[in-house]
Amino acid sequence: MATTAIKKKNKTKTKGAAGSSKKSAKYVYFFGSGKAEGNAKMKSLLGGKGANLAEMTSIGIPVPAGFTITTETCAQFYELGSRWPQGLEAQIRANMAKLEKSMGAKFGDRDNPLLVSVRSGAAVSMPGMMDTVLNLGLNSEVVQGLIIKTENERFAWDAYRRFIQMFGDVVMNVEHEVFEHILESKKEQLGVKLDTELDPNDLKDIVRQYKKAYQDHTGEEFPSDPYEQLKKSINAVFASWNNPRAKKYRLLNEISGLMGTAVNVQAMVYGNMGNTSGTGVCFTRNPSTGENKFYGEFLVNAQGEDVVAGIRTPEPLDQMQKKWPDIYKQLVAIRARLENHYKDMQDIEFTVQEKKLYLLQTRNGKRTAAAAVRIAVELVKEKRIGQNEAILRVDPKQLDQLLHPTFNPKQAKKCIVKGLPASPGAATGKVVFNAEDAESWAASGESVILVRIETSPEDIGGMNAAKGILTARGGMTSHAAVVARGMGKCCVAGAGEVKIDYKAKQFSVGGVTVKQGEFISLDGSLGEVYQGQLETIEPELSGDFAKLMKWADQTRRLKVRTNADTPHDSLVARKFGAEGIGLCRTEHMFFEGDRIIAVREMILADNQEGREKALAKLLPIQRKDFEGIFTEMKGLPVTVRLLDPPLHEFLPHEEQNQKEMAGVMNVSVDVIRHKVASLHEFNPMLGHRGCRLGISFPEIYKMQARAIIEAACNVKKKGLKVLPEIMIPLVGMKKELDLLKQDIEDVIADVFESKKTKVPYMIGTMIEIPRAALTADKIAETAQFFSFGTNDLTQMGLGFSRDDAGSFLGAYLEKGIFEKDPFQSIDQEGIGYLIQLGVEKGRKVRPDLKIGICGEHGGDPASVNFCHNVGMNYVSCSPYRVPIARLAAAQAVIREKQKKK
Amino acid sequence: MATTAIKKKNKTKTKGAAGSSKKSAKYVYFFGSGKAEGNAKMKSLLGGKGANLAEMTSIGIPVPAGFTITTETCAQFYELGSRWPQGLEAQIRANMAKLEKSMGAKFGDRDNPLLVSVRSGAAVSMPGMMDTVLNLGLNSEVVQGLIIKTENERFAWDAYRRFIQMFGDVVMNVEHEVFEHILESKKEQLGVKLDTELDPNDLKDIVRQYKKAYQDHTGEEFPSDPYEQLKKSINAVFASWNNPRAKKYRLLNEISGLMGTAVNVQAMVYGNMGNTSGTGVCFTRNPSTGENKFYGEFLVNAQGEDVVAGIRTPEPLDQMQKKWPDIYKQLVAIRARLENHYKDMQDIEFTVQEKKLYLLQTRNGKRTAAAAVRIAVELVKEKRIGQNEAILRVDPKQLDQLLHPTFNPKQAKKCIVKGLPASPGAATGKVVFNAEDAESWAASGESVILVRIETSPEDIGGMNAAKGILTARGGMTSHAAVVARGMGKCCVAGAGEVKIDYKAKQFSVGGVTVKQGEFISLDGSLGEVYQGQLETIEPELSGDFAKLMKWADQTRRLKVRTNADTPHDSLVARKFGAEGIGLCRTEHMFFEGDRIIAVREMILADNQEGREKALAKLLPIQRKDFEGIFTEMKGLPVTVRLLDPPLHEFLPHEEQNQKEMAGVMNVSVDVIRHKVASLHEFNPMLGHRGCRLGISFPEIYKMQARAIIEAACNVKKKGLKVLPEIMIPLVGMKKELDLLKQDIEDVIADVFESKKTKVPYMIGTMIEIPRAALTADKIAETAQFFSFGTNDLTQMGLGFSRDDAGSFLGAYLEKGIFEKDPFQSIDQEGIGYLIQLGVEKGRKVRPDLKIGICGEHGGDPASVNFCHNVGMNYVSCSPYRVPIARLAAAQAVIREKQKKK
Repeated sequence: MATTAIKKKNKTKTKGAAGSSKKSAKYVYFFGSGKAEGNAKMKSLLGGKGANLAEMTSIGIPVPAGFTITTETCAQFYELGSRWPQGLEAQIRANMAKLEKSMGAKFGDRDNPLLVSVRSGAAVSMPGMMDTVLNLGLNSEVVQGLIIKTENERFAWDAYRRFIQMFGDVVMNVEHEVFEHILESKKEQLGVKLDTELDPNDLKDIVRQYKKAYQDHTGEEFPSDPYEQLKKSINAVFASWNNPRAKKYRLLNEISGLMGTAVNVQAMVYGNMGNTSGTGVCFTRNPSTGENKFYGEFLVNAQGEDVVAGIRTPEPLDQMQKKWPDIYKQLVAIRARLENHYKDMQDIEFTVQEKKLYLLQTRNGKRTAAAAVRIAVELVKEKRIGQNEAILRVDPKQLDQLLHPTFNPKQAKKCIVKGLPASPGAATGKVVFNAEDAESWAASGESVILVRIETSPEDIGGMNAAKGILTARGGMTSHAAVVARGMGKCCVAGAGEVKIDYKAKQFSVGGVTVKQGEFISLDGSLGEVYQGQLETIEPELSGDFAKLMKWADQTRRLKVRTNADTPHDSLVARKFGAEGIGLCRTEHMFFEGDRIIAVREMILADNQEGREKALAKLLPIQRKDFEGIFTEMKGLPVTVRLLDPPLHEFLPHEEQNQKEMAGVMNVSVDVIRHKVASLHEFNPMLGHRGCRLGISFPEIYKMQARAIIEAACNVKKKGLKVLPEIMIPLVGMKKELDLLKQDIEDVIADVFESKKTKVPYMIGTMIEIPRAALTADKIAETAQFFSFGTNDLTQMGLGFSRDDAGSFLGAYLEKGIFEKDPFQSIDQEGIGYLIQLGVEKGRKVRPDLKIGICGEHGGDPASVNFCHNVGMNYVSCSPYRVPIARLAAAQAVIREKQKKK
Repeated sequence: MATTAIKKKNKTKTKGAAGSSKKSAKYVYFFGSGKAEGNAKMKSLLGGKGANLAEMTSIGIPVPAGFTITTETCAQFYELGSRWPQGLEAQIRANMAKLEKSMGAKFGDRDNPLLVSVRSGAAVSMPGMMDTVLNLGLNSEVVQGLIIKTENERFAWDAYRRFIQMFGDVVMNVEHEVFEHILESKKEQLGVKLDTELDPNDLKDIVRQYKKAYQDHTGEEFPSDPYEQLKKSINAVFASWNNPRAKKYRLLNEISGLMGTAVNVQAMVYGNMGNTSGTGVCFTRNPSTGENKFYGEFLVNAQGEDVVAGIRTPEPLDQMQKKWPDIYKQLVAIRARLENHYKDMQDIEFTVQEKKLYLLQTRNGKRTAAAAVRIAVELVKEKRIGQNEAILRVDPKQLDQLLHPTFNPKQAKKCIVKGLPASPGAATGKVVFNAEDAESWAASGESVILVRIETSPEDIGGMNAAKGILTARGGMTSHAAVVARGMGKCCVAGAGEVKIDYKAKQFSVGGVTVKQGEFISLDGSLGEVYQGQLETIEPELSGDFAKLMKWADQTRRLKVRTNADTPHDSLVARKFGAEGIGLCRTEHMFFEGDRIIAVREMILADNQEGREKALAKLLPIQRKDFEGIFTEMKGLPVTVRLLDPPLHEFLPHEEQNQKEMAGVMNVSVDVIRHKVASLHEFNPMLGHRGCRLGISFPEIYKMQARAIIEAACNVKKKGLKVLPEIMIPLVGMKKELDLLKQDIEDVIADVFESKKTKVPYMIGTMIEIPRAALTADKIAETAQFFSFGTNDLTQMGLGFSRDDAGSFLGAYLEKGIFEKDPFQSIDQEGIGYLIQLGVEKGRKVRPDLKIGICGEHGGDPASVNFCHNVGMNYVSCSPYRVPIARLAAAQAVIREKQKKK
C-alpha cells in the first residue's frame, strides 16, 4: 500500500518537477550550519536520506554538512547518455565551497583536509542495493594532512586504504577479492590475525600495493585529484541505479515510476580523533520498558563500527554527563528537540569530533511491545499526540509479546533449528513423540514438548497436555498451527530439517540428536528451537495496555469474536475482550473420552438406522458441551459450525491403533481397515466433508442441530440469554443450504414444541468455496449470515493446499510473487476480490446480512483492515489474537478517516 | 434452459390471463370432431397434454374427443379454498354434452354409455407425479350397458373393477393394497394365478367386495352418479398438484411459476372390443436406420397394455394393410399429415375401436444416431426443413455412437456391474490386472481389458495396449477416463462394487468372480460390464454424416481443436476435422522407454546442475516428439503445455517397482523411498505442480521451451509451416507468468540466434485457478492467449476433487443440487461466471486475446454452446469428440440467431 501511494505521488511529481527543472536547473540542494534547502516532504526529489538530512538540519540538529544531487539529475544523466547536464559541475563546486565553509576545512587540502562520503538514496528505501564511497578526498598529500590533523598515523593510512578499496570496487569494478588478498597476504607474512594488529607502516605498504593492484586491473592510475574522485563516484552512484541487482530489486518489490537515485555528498566526521572525540547510540526513551528516560551508550575515541564490533565495552550515558557535561547537555537538548519534532521515541547515532557533536542519524526507535504501549499512552498524556495517533503507534502484531510467556533474555540459548513461528510464546519441556505419552507424562507432572512429523485431530489431547508443539511438516495454517493458536499454545511448525525417528524415540537435526525425555525449548514467536531447558517469563498486562485497548474499543466499528470450542477457551477469549464466538468447531468435541467411540460407531454403521443409534449416544454429550459454552458466553452470539472434516479423520490410521479400536468396538480389524481404505481420498481437502456429509447423512446435522437448540433452551430456562447461530460449512450451491436448512428448521420446530419454549436463532453459512462467493446473491436468499472461511477460500482460490504449500511458498515469497504468506495475510488482490464480490452480492439480496470472517486471517492486522474496508460486521480469531484484532480494527477506522481527508 | 424459458413465459401469461379470465371466465376448452378451441401454443393454459390433444384434433387427426379444464381454473380452485369457481360446473356439463354428441354415446347411459378418463397435465411434464382415473362413468346400471355394447361381459366387469380401485386410490386415498388383497384372496380361493383366469362372475364378486371395502375405508358408499364421480376425480387431480411428491418434484427440478395443473377429460376408447378393434404403435420412418418407410406393429382385439405385456406377439403393419385396408389407408394418410405438420419422424400410438381409428398420441420418435443423421439430411432433401433445422435435429452427444465400435445388438449379454460411461465404445478381451501384463499380452496378439482399482500415469503404456479399461474407483474425469477418451478407447470407470484382488489376480462382483485371462466386455457408452466375449461392430461413417458436418462447419464460428500428445493422435484428430491442437500434454511423453529414466534422474538430483544434466538427455527426445507433432499438424496451431503434474507421479510407489528403479538408477532403494516420501502431498491437486515447478526449477521449463522452439525451427527448415503456442499451466499470479515468460523468451532468443532462423510463436497461460480468472486483467498484460482449464477450474471453484467426488456426487445429482455432473458439463452459474469474468477482464486489457478451452468440457455440447456465447475463439477436446464439438458449435450459432429474432 505504501509503495503504491509513493508511486502515484512520484508519477504526478515527475511531470511537474521535470518541467520546472529545465527552467530553474537546480540540481543540488545544500544542508548545513542549521539551514537546508530541502525538507522531509521532498523525498521524491532528494531521496529518503537526502530529505531527512535536510529536515534534521533545518530543525537545528547539528548534522555534518553536505548537499544532495537530485533524482531528476540522475534521470537527466541517463537521458544525456551518462553525461552531466550543463551547470551541474558548477553547482557542485559552489556547494562544495559552502560545505568547506560550514565544516571549516578544505577539500583536497594537505593541512586541514575535508573528506566526504558519497551515498545513493532513492525515494524508496532499497537497502544494500546501491553504492557508497567513504573517506573521499584522500591522496598521498592529503593523507599527510590527515595525519597531522588527527595526530593518528594509523587511522589516516587505514582510512586511505579503505578509500582505495571502496573506490576501486564501487567505481571501477575491481573485485573485492583483489584487495582482500593483498590484506590477507600481508597479515600472513607478518603472522598476525586481526587488522588492528597492523601498524601504520604495514598499512602504508598496503596502500602502495592497493594502488598498484588498482592500476593493474583498471589500466589507469588511481586518481589523485579529489574532484576527479568525486565526479567518478557520483557517476558510479548514478550508474548503480540501473545495475541488474537494483533493477531486479525494483521488479520484485514492484517499485516503479521513480526517476532515479539522488546522490548525497556529506562531510566525514570521525569519533576516533583522540580523547575529545567519541561516538554513541541512544534512545530518547527506554526501548525495553518505554520509560521516559534518556537511554544510551557511548565510547570515547572510537568510530561507530567499533561499537558494533564489540571490541571495547561502551559506557552508559551518565558517564558522558560526567566526562563531557557540555556535550551531554547539547545531546539532552537535541533529544527534546527531536521528540518535539518527530513526536515519537527516536533512535539516534552521534559522533563527537574534537568536542563538536554531530548527529549522524535519527529515526523512530525500535521497541518492545511493552515499550510501544507505554510510550504511546504517555505521549498522549504529554499531549504530544492524540489518542488516534497513539492507537496507530502500536503494531498490533507486537501485542503477541505481551500475551504470551517469553524467555528470559539474559540466558544463553543454543538454537538447533528454525521452523515457522506458528503460534507465539515460549515453552520448555521434555520431548515426547506421541500424544499418549504427552498426556501421561503431563498427568504425572512433567512439562512436555510434543514433537511430531505432523499432527492430526487424534493428537488433540496430547497437544493440550503439552507446553509446546514442534512439527517437521506443515505450514502456518497446518493442523498443528491452527489448533495451537486456538489453545494459545506455543508451536513451531514445519521445521523440515528435523528428522524424527518414531521407533527410536528421538529426533536429529544438524548433527544434534535429542532423545525422548531430554529438554528442548521453543520460541513460537520466532520459530526457533533451542537445546536444553530455558527460563520463561510470564506476561503481565499493564494499565497502559488496558487504556490503549479502551481507546481502540471506542474507536473501532468491527466487532471482534473468537474461535473457541470449549467453555475454557470461551472464558479466556472473553477476558481478552471477545464479543462472541465466531467459530465453534464441533468436531474437536468428538475426540474426547467415550465420544470418539460413538463417533466411530456412527462411521462404521452401514445404514441410517445404525448411524442414528450411534448419534443418539452423542446427542446428550454434545448438548452438554453447548450448555457449557452458552453459559460461559452469557448471551453473546455463538456461531456453531456443524461437522466439517472428512470422516476418516476420526478413524485410526496406524495398525496398532486400529487393533485397539477393533477390540473396543468388538469388530474385526479388517472391518476397520476396510472402512479406512474406503474413506481414503486423493485430495481430502476437496472431498467428502462439510455440508456434503450433511447431504449424504442428514441425521448427523439433525443431531447437531438438536443438541444446539436443546442446549439453548435449557440454558434459557436457567434465566440466561442465548444466541445460537447455526453455521453450515462448505456450501457451494444454494440448494445444499436449502435442503439442510429445511432439515434443521424441522428439528428446531420439534425441539421448541417439546421444550415448550423458543430461543432466537439464525441459520447461515460459511463462504469458503469460490463458487459460494461467486453466487453469494443466490446463497443469501437462504443464508441469514455469512462467515468467510478464508483458510479454505485461500486454498481453493489460489489452488494451494496449506499443508503442502511449504515446498514452494518459500520460493514464492523470495521471488516476490507474494509479499506475504497468503495463509497469514489475505491475498487482497485475488482472494480479497472474491470476498468483496461475496459481500456485495450478498448484501444486494439481503441488505442487513451479517457478515464476518472466521479464518486464521481474522487475527492478522492487514486482513482485519481489509475486513473493515469491505464492510464486514465482525472478525473472529483465536482467543490470544483478540486484542490484536481489536487494535487493528481501531487502526482501520483511523486510516479510513485519514484517507477521506 | 428450457425450464427457465417456460417459467418466464408463464409469469408473463399469469397476469394477463388471470386478468382476462375473470371477465371471460372460460374454464374449459373442447377438442373433438376435427375442431379444437386450443392449440399447441397454449401449453401454459392447457398443459402440455391438453395443448397437444387440441393441436392433433385441429389438424384433422382422429383423436378421442374430450375437453381440458385450464391451469387457471386449478389456481382459482386453490384461491377459493378447494372449491369450483362459479360457472365451471355449467361449462363442464355443456362440454360433456358436446363430447357425448361427438362420440355418439351418453355419459351414465345404460344403453350406450360414454366412459371417460380424467388426467392431469401441467405445462411442464412431471412424469408419474400426478394422478389419473380411467373408465369413469361406470355404475351397476351402466356396466350392463357396457356389456351389451361390447358384447363382452368379462371386459365390462374388469373395467368396472379397475375403475373402483383407481377411484378409491386416487380420489379417496384408499390404499392400493386393500384392493390387491381382495383380488389375491379371490385368486387363491379359486386356485388360479393370472388375472385373466378370472371369469365374469368372479369379477362381479370382486366388484361387490371392492365397493364394500371402499365403504369400510371411506365411510361412504361408492358414488354411483357419474357426475359425482367426475367432480370428485377433477378435484383429486387439482389436489394432486400440491401433494408432497409433486411439490418435491418441482423443488428438485426447479419448476416454479406455474399456475397449477390442467385436467383432461377424454372419451375412453377400447381396442379390445372384438375382431374389428385393435391397437398399435408405429414410427413414420425406420428409427434404427432412418429409412423413409412406415414402420410399426399392431395387435387385433387388444389394449395398449397387452402389447407392452408381451403376452401376444404383435403383427407387422403390412399385415394390417391386408386385414383392414381402409383403416391402414387412413393411417398412412395420417402418417403423411403428421410428418407434414411436425416436420419430423413421429412415434404414434393408435387404437381401433369397432373399425374406427383413434390416435392416442403422437410425438417426435426416438432414433439411433445413424437414423437421426439420415432423417435430418433427407428432410432437407424433401424440403421439409432447412439446413439449420437439420443441424439442430441431431443430438451431438449421439454422434459418439457413430464414431466408436458397438456391440452387435442381436447377441445375449450378461451385465455383471454398471460403472460410469467414462469413454464410449465397445470392447471385449481377456482380463489383466496390471499395465505390464497388458503390454506383454497385447504384444503376443491377445485382446486385453485392463482392470485396475484406479490408473496412474505409470499405466499409460498398458492402457494404450488394452482394448478397454475398467476401474473400480474414479469419476468421469479421473485419470483413466481422461486418458481413455484421449485415446478414443473404451472405458468404464468407478465401478465401485468391483472388488479387485491384485494378489490373486481376480476380481469379484455380485457373486461373480473373474480371473485373469477370462473374457469380459465393456460398453463404455452405457458404463456396462458383461461377462464373456461379445461380438463388436466397427463404425462406418455415411455420406449423410459428411454432408451434415459440412453444413455444421459452414455455420459455426468457434474453431475446434483437439487434445493430442502424439503424432498418431494428431492425425486421428485431423481426420475428424480438428483445426489445431489446443492441448498437448508434455508429461505423457515422459513415461515411455528410456525417457522415464532421465526424468527420474532429474527428480533424484539434489541440485540444479544434476537436474540440468538429466534434462540434457531429455532435450533431444522431447524435440523429436515435437517435430513429429508439428509435421503432422501441417502449420495448424499447436498449444504445448509445459510440465504440469507433481513430480511424484513419475516415481514408482510400489515396493517392487522401487527396487527395480533402484537397480536401474544404481542407487539404494532407501534413496527412492525417501524421495517418494518427501514428495508426498496431502492434497496433490493443490500442491507443487504446474508452473510452481517452473518457478522452483526453472531449468525444466527452459529445457521444454528449447525443445519446442528447436523442433519448430527444424520443421520450418524442411519447408513446412509451424505455429507453436507455449502454454504455462496453473498460473494464479501475474508475476509467475512474468518470471517464466522471461526465462522462456531468453531461451527462444538463444535458439533463434543459434539456428539462424525464426518462427512465429506465442506464450500464454492456462486459466484454471480461480484467482487467475479473477485477476485475468492483470494476467492478460503478460499472456498472449488464455486457455481455460475447466477441469481444474471446476475442481477448485467448486472445491470438488474429481477423483473423490464419486462418494457424494451421486446424491447431489439425485437431490437435484446439480442437473448434470459438473465435470462433464460446465456448471454455468458458478464456474461459468468465473469464465465469463476471465474472458471479460482479459479482453478489456487485450481486446484481441485468443481464448479457448481445453478441459474435458470442450467436447460437451452444452459447454460448447456456453463457450460460443461467452465469446471464446475455440474449444479443444479429445480427438473422438471433435465432430461432436463441430456440430454443437454450429447449433450454438443457430440458437443464438433464433434468440435474437
